[in-house]
Amino acid sequence: MLITFEGIDGAGKSTQIQKLVHALAVMGIEAITLREPGGTTVAEKIRHILLESSHEITPIGELLLFSASRAELIQQVVMPALANGKTVILDRFFDSTTAYQGYGRGLDLEMLRSIIAISTCGINPDITFYLDLEPEEALKRKFSKRSIPLAFEGEELDRMERSGLEFYHNVRRGYLDIARINNGRFVLLNALDPVAVIHDSIIAHLKKMFVA
Amino acid sequence: MLITFEGIDGAGKSTQIQKLVHALAVMGIEAITLREPGGTTVAEKIRHILLESSHEITPIGELLLFSASRAELIQQVVMPALANGKTVILDRFFDSTTAYQGYGRGLDLEMLRSIIAISTCGINPDITFYLDLEPEEALKRKFSKRSIPLAFEGEELDRMERSGLEFYHNVRRGYLDIARINNGRFVLLNALDPVAVIHDSIIAHLKKMFVA
Repeated sequence: MLITFEGIDGAGKSTQIQKLVHALAVMGIEAITLREPGGTTVAEKIRHILLESSHEITPIGELLLFSASRAELIQQVVMPALANGKTVILDRFFDSTTAYQGYGRGLDLEMLRSIIAISTCGINPDITFYLDLEPEEALKRKFSKRSIPLAFEGEELDRMERSGLEFYHNVRRGYLDIARINNGRFVLLNALDPVAVIHDSIIAHLKKMFVA
Repeated sequence: MLITFEGIDGAGKSTQIQKLVHALAVMGIEAITLREPGGTTVAEKIRHILLESSHEITPIGELLLFSASRAELIQQVVMPALANGKTVILDRFFDSTTAYQGYGRGLDLEMLRSIIAISTCGINPDITFYLDLEPEEALKRKFSKRSIPLAFEGEELDRMERSGLEFYHNVRRGYLDIARINNGRFVLLNALDPVAVIHDSIIAHLKKMFVA
């Protein structure tokens, strides 16, 4: 079974994944957690290129590097694990490509679909938990975590932050479109709900699937 | 003007490129020579991942890494140079992908076409010089350069070398198919001809193009 988590940074994916892995372990289900980009020697090297902020990378180059990392992770780790009957939890998968590179950076969605088909070898998640959050709220969480005393107001953002906000609004719009199109697989969760409430909802959805 | 050189290693691409750059300089035409993969900071890092032989990379991962490197080189170096009216000479371009990843590794040609369209941003060479050589001859040249006293005979190859030979025969078959399909752009040259004869033929083809 392949479970993926999606949402902008700050939405609480890591917290929920941790709680889910624990809950599955209690039920006797061993789950492997992986994050994109990364997960193999080559994919980690690609991750390093992608995250080193000093590099200028074109949107297409970025897309192809993410896809190369994904191809390695899927073929060398995820497919063998699934073949061995293991449960795999991915912190981000191809919906991130559609949301970030498509809606965020404006790359053609049809082109993205063809690249995604190639890099995933056609592997689809059984279920995707999307933690929906307003970008403003994500930014608030980020600043409060860093304990920077910033009286955050939309109008007081500098140019970079404003461009960042617009980008994240487009990404969120992307996720909501994906949710609309894939409502069989995509579970929309409100990231503002208490952690335990979200977790219970995730467990309930999974139990329903295991029964079905 | 974009000029590309293709052919298996040992066919004499570097020698001909060097002679061509010199000849163009004499005619007052400045040419930039670039090689794939590489040519930008990011692309060189990708080259390093691709050439480090200790890594296991899947054919799809390899394809996407080559394509990412290509996307960077094309957008950051080749397109600006062409826009400035410069002549660009590429030591390998997307025909290598078709020949090596398609015919050599057996990846789907239709899939390759879509990846190539994305990574090149639709840029096509004005002319491609393909130096055709039997893989056995390329291997002979390689061993003679390294001065390994090897009495090379098809039957005396070990398993690895045989698999290598079959791979290169498929690559060559790919190049010959490409030559057949693109006979307006693809100039087939016999790599066994003397260096000066090949060079003269290249110059003759280019002069014909400049006049047209």
